[in-house]
Amino acid sequence: MPVEPTPIPRHHPLLTEFRRAFKSGPPLVAIEGPRLIGEAIRSGFRVERALFSRTGLEHHGDKLLPQFSKHTTAAVADDGPFAAAMDAEHPQGVAALVRFTPAALAEAFGKEGAVPLLLAAAEMQDPGNLGTLIRAADAFGATGFVALADTVSPFNPKALRASAGSIFHLPVVAKVTAAELIAACRARNVALLATAARASGNDPNEALSGLDRPVCIVIGQEGAGVPRELLRAAGRTIAIPMQRSIESLNAGAAGAILLYEAARQRR
Amino acid sequence: MPVEPTPIPRHHPLLTEFRRAFKSGPPLVAIEGPRLIGEAIRSGFRVERALFSRTGLEHHGDKLLPQFSKHTTAAVADDGPFAAAMDAEHPQGVAALVRFTPAALAEAFGKEGAVPLLLAAAEMQDPGNLGTLIRAADAFGATGFVALADTVSPFNPKALRASAGSIFHLPVVAKVTAAELIAACRARNVALLATAARASGNDPNEALSGLDRPVCIVIGQEGAGVPRELLRAAGRTIAIPMQRSIESLNAGAAGAILLYEAARQRR
Repeated sequence: MPVEPTPIPRHHPLLTEFRRAFKSGPPLVAIEGPRLIGEAIRSGFRVERALFSRTGLEHHGDKLLPQFSKHTTAAVADDGPFAAAMDAEHPQGVAALVRFTPAALAEAFGKEGAVPLLLAAAEMQDPGNLGTLIRAADAFGATGFVALADTVSPFNPKALRASAGSIFHLPVVAKVTAAELIAACRARNVALLATAARASGNDPNEALSGLDRPVCIVIGQEGAGVPRELLRAAGRTIAIPMQRSIESLNAGAAGAILLYEAARQRR
Repeated sequence: MPVEPTPIPRHHPLLTEFRRAFKSGPPLVAIEGPRLIGEAIRSGFRVERALFSRTGLEHHGDKLLPQFSKHTTAAVADDGPFAAAMDAEHPQGVAALVRFTPAALAEAFGKEGAVPLLLAAAEMQDPGNLGTLIRAADAFGATGFVALADTVSPFNPKALRASAGSIFHLPVVAKVTAAELIAACRARNVALLATAARASGNDPNEALSGLDRPVCIVIGQEGAGVPRELLRAAGRTIAIPMQRSIESLNAGAAGAILLYEAARQRR
């Protein structure tokens, strides 16, 4: 059992530490809300510091406090200063600093014997979409998720919220260059697939075939699509068959469909 | 060809009219950005008023002005007052008021001979997710989209942006009560399917079977799920089979997967 949370005043350095952690990311990642914190603990991550608002302590203290280890420092601040240290517009009364080491690229290819299924995001700027993709990668059994170098950080607080805890479930690799990803796929005989808005005259029944093989699906920002370097290196361009030709699907929705289809073919 | 846009001062009533239209919705819907406006015109909707910022007129005037009919009143305001009348955080320099009559519920079942495929959103509060669903409904050939009474308006500016113009392509019905939807489906022998986070012990290969028949898929807010009245009336509860058990997918992603799967089965 941790000690009772220590009350801290309005200008305490811990508030600054949280404000900074929301911007900086690993090795200390700031997460908000009882669900995300619970998910981190259940997944074996170590909560270094917990911060409650007065109201948040009343609501979530009984449930959360017993889950912290003796290494967790818990504090409580007044609602106003607490909210000012948070990223969310409507904070949920509790936040935590979690020690988090991003995965190495090799881990994203899965454990020995797994058929690699990677989703790689290129030049994606919307953290909500990125979090949605990480959540879908988790749901559909992807072996790993790769955020390429020019993509918004998966440890961005909005991406973490949208991932709904899935960030703690599968290897998530950040700041990977296109060259590194291409080399890693080649070394392991994993097919690099680039997604496009339109298939090049494919039979719709064939458009997404072969996702049961070892694959790394690269998805780009809507509109701009997959960057040229990756397009050139890709073994194949795939497109989701559509009934009506629209410019593109939302990137989060498109990635979720591709992962669903891969899982379907792998059953 | 419309006349040259009329310069308007800082406190012109047209600015107020736009500000209000972003909040109120049909019959006059305010839309922003050259793409969305172009999509409305191509889809046969009538632009009543167009408003440019000075900078926006330089960028988009040559392309957009010739597309307006003689019924369009075009105006130009300074960048500051223009931005203040917009909804988007980063407005794109042009907006329009479009006359838009929401579809009647009957239209969402498709034209004579079509196999109805409806997506109905229940208690969904995120306009971005709603727009993503409308875009997916368009892409995968749904006959219509229904926003149930307690769902955010599909004519909300954020939903319109996320729909990327798809709102102009298929019948979108708003403010439908659960009772109305249930009755309309029964009258047409359209199966009402409620989505849930988890299937009730189904074989994953059977979990989503039968989407090639006339169906109305009801999707709820993440977490809360489909409201009880609709759950009770539903002929069947469906769930997307997942590899790892997560609480739920993002609602936009889940709806897009169900529509993709329906389109796949209908090929």
